[in-house]
Amino acid sequence: MNNKSDSDTTSAGKVETQYIKFEEGILLDCGKTLAPITVAYETYGNLNPEKDNAILVLHALSGDAHAAGYHENTDKTGWWDIMIGPGKGIDTNQYFVICSNIIGGCKGTTGPSSTNPETGKPYGLSFPSITIKDMVRVQKMLIDYLGIPGLLNVIGGSMGGMQALQWAVSYPKNVFSCCAIASTTKLSPQSIAFDQIGRLAILQDPNFNNGDYYEKQIPAKGLALARMIGHITYLSDESMHTKFGRAVKEGDTNKPFEPEFEVETYLHYQGDEFIKRFDANSYLYITKAMDYFDLSEGKKNLRETFKNAESQFLIISFTSDWLFPVYQSKEILSALKSNLSDVTYCEIKSSYGHDAFLFEIDELTRMVSNFLIRVKNNIKKKNSNKTD
Amino acid sequence: MNNKSDSDTTSAGKVETQYIKFEEGILLDCGKTLAPITVAYETYGNLNPEKDNAILVLHALSGDAHAAGYHENTDKTGWWDIMIGPGKGIDTNQYFVICSNIIGGCKGTTGPSSTNPETGKPYGLSFPSITIKDMVRVQKMLIDYLGIPGLLNVIGGSMGGMQALQWAVSYPKNVFSCCAIASTTKLSPQSIAFDQIGRLAILQDPNFNNGDYYEKQIPAKGLALARMIGHITYLSDESMHTKFGRAVKEGDTNKPFEPEFEVETYLHYQGDEFIKRFDANSYLYITKAMDYFDLSEGKKNLRETFKNAESQFLIISFTSDWLFPVYQSKEILSALKSNLSDVTYCEIKSSYGHDAFLFEIDELTRMVSNFLIRVKNNIKKKNSNKTD
Repeated sequence: MNNKSDSDTTSAGKVETQYIKFEEGILLDCGKTLAPITVAYETYGNLNPEKDNAILVLHALSGDAHAAGYHENTDKTGWWDIMIGPGKGIDTNQYFVICSNIIGGCKGTTGPSSTNPETGKPYGLSFPSITIKDMVRVQKMLIDYLGIPGLLNVIGGSMGGMQALQWAVSYPKNVFSCCAIASTTKLSPQSIAFDQIGRLAILQDPNFNNGDYYEKQIPAKGLALARMIGHITYLSDESMHTKFGRAVKEGDTNKPFEPEFEVETYLHYQGDEFIKRFDANSYLYITKAMDYFDLSEGKKNLRETFKNAESQFLIISFTSDWLFPVYQSKEILSALKSNLSDVTYCEIKSSYGHDAFLFEIDELTRMVSNFLIRVKNNIKKKNSNKTD
Repeated sequence: MNNKSDSDTTSAGKVETQYIKFEEGILLDCGKTLAPITVAYETYGNLNPEKDNAILVLHALSGDAHAAGYHENTDKTGWWDIMIGPGKGIDTNQYFVICSNIIGGCKGTTGPSSTNPETGKPYGLSFPSITIKDMVRVQKMLIDYLGIPGLLNVIGGSMGGMQALQWAVSYPKNVFSCCAIASTTKLSPQSIAFDQIGRLAILQDPNFNNGDYYEKQIPAKGLALARMIGHITYLSDESMHTKFGRAVKEGDTNKPFEPEFEVETYLHYQGDEFIKRFDANSYLYITKAMDYFDLSEGKKNLRETFKNAESQFLIISFTSDWLFPVYQSKEILSALKSNLSDVTYCEIKSSYGHDAFLFEIDELTRMVSNFLIRVKNNIKKKNSNKTD
């Protein structure tokens, strides 16, 4: 994330994270009720009188509600600020954009680091298991609270794309269009394996203390290692060649096995930064939700899963993404096509790997903004047909 | 590794690991002299009177001198028993096959777990840094000790291939042919990154104790985690789909975040087995040697590196190997071709990933055995030309 520039006329401007508490909580997929739930969210742009210009942006594993604009105190711009703002791919002059932190997260929405009202202490591992569907359920509560009858669009990359697809399937009447970028209906065993290694690094950290580390030493080394593993999978072999090659940092270290290659130093930096802003228990719960996610819920035919979906779809994959590979997006395309759904598929040539959804902004801007225009036109057409 | 079958007429038979101690030691690339050095090695088949039928087999990261046949006490067959034996790809009826444990290893050859004669205690992290070139230097001492003037062939997969290439470059007059399988002249930054993560898992284990854990608790959790990371990179996305898919093991665990998917259970098993047979310090030193390895030693042109090599080459890569990808083998091919070297390149279609060099035995058997016949014929031709 970068800091704001005052001269930036395409910024969504100064924003504040807002909070809404749902006292009744929700019944989770695991069968437990979690109550109360607080949801942290931000909005950009204005809801029109027809309330039909709302777009829900869904964040990935380590994201939060702060998707665009900047916060007054920190000047920190949102994680997708390059896509969301006046005149940008998701144009806040036209659309009312909402982003909320997921349940299980650690950025304001109720998660394992939140206080368990029954004990007065953080939940830790007593936090119930959560699913992508649960995340979407909580988002639906937020959308209802905001008085929005239907979302013009749900959009997200990576785990955000999983949520977008789940929205289209869970609430077909409330979603006019869905963009799933660098995403999948279920993780590959290889991706599950990487998640497992990351979790194990956390679980094995002596400071983990069975998840009860709040106000003590956090399992920083384990969490940093998990992030480093993740980061390798977010890049590509090609982008690592370009970014680091086999360059070795200057100066010599006398400690054996200290990082020497630039790629090592980079990963260490990423790990060290991550532990300042993320909770290890959240990392465990959210990666597990990703591993469990299977949009088809065991149905053999993905076509069946999308049977009732009424959205227009935009599915985007990146050639060098090996964590959520192209073939997974093509599976979604096939299922939707065989249902005669309205689906556009784009495979973007990119060397950025999985992270491309945060970098290939020119292409994404064109694709998403044009897709949204087409969605609006289709809605207009439908409405005029109705009134004819 | 499997156990022997008594009815197996293609087994190299009962073998014993032998040991030779070089009191004078060697001067290492790091500038330090390591003395004495013990080398653990095994041989299969017989050296012919002309002493021109010797093949040196070079092992990968976690291998050892026990490449073929079986040990009497354990019945354990060697790590490449499917390739080495009477009538096999490397036919012990025809060839005298040698395999030695590398320096820095933990299977009989001097490494960080060996006793430092100056202190009477294991070296631990006082063991000097080693390189692939050092491994090859020690192998040359062994070959000299065995009275072999020239090797008919040097052959290895993965890090074994690195050593094979180094042999061809370091001792051009002593190597008639070289097979580098699933190998490279230098690791990609992505592979360095994975190695770094594995080392960090070990270094962060509280039992690591700065490498001084012998006769105490070993850093088992860290070493297992390192092995699990490695194992993901040895397989392929496709082979993981075939082997595990998204299957979940039966029964329920009440402990949160225990392995559930079959791929998780498999990796845990691999980690747990590894810690019984491998030393964590050796893992650090050997992976670092791999990371440092650059056959061209900074020369821009790989062709220059091979300038003096006189071997015939067989370079083999596997389509699904993403740790030592096909393009790395093709770089070797290009360099050798532009030198007018005698080189055969084979890209084997395989879903096994990097591990294919241990599994695609039918293809490897044909390629290697035919290559060796051609090498022998070429030598005969040369010799008859000389005597003409």
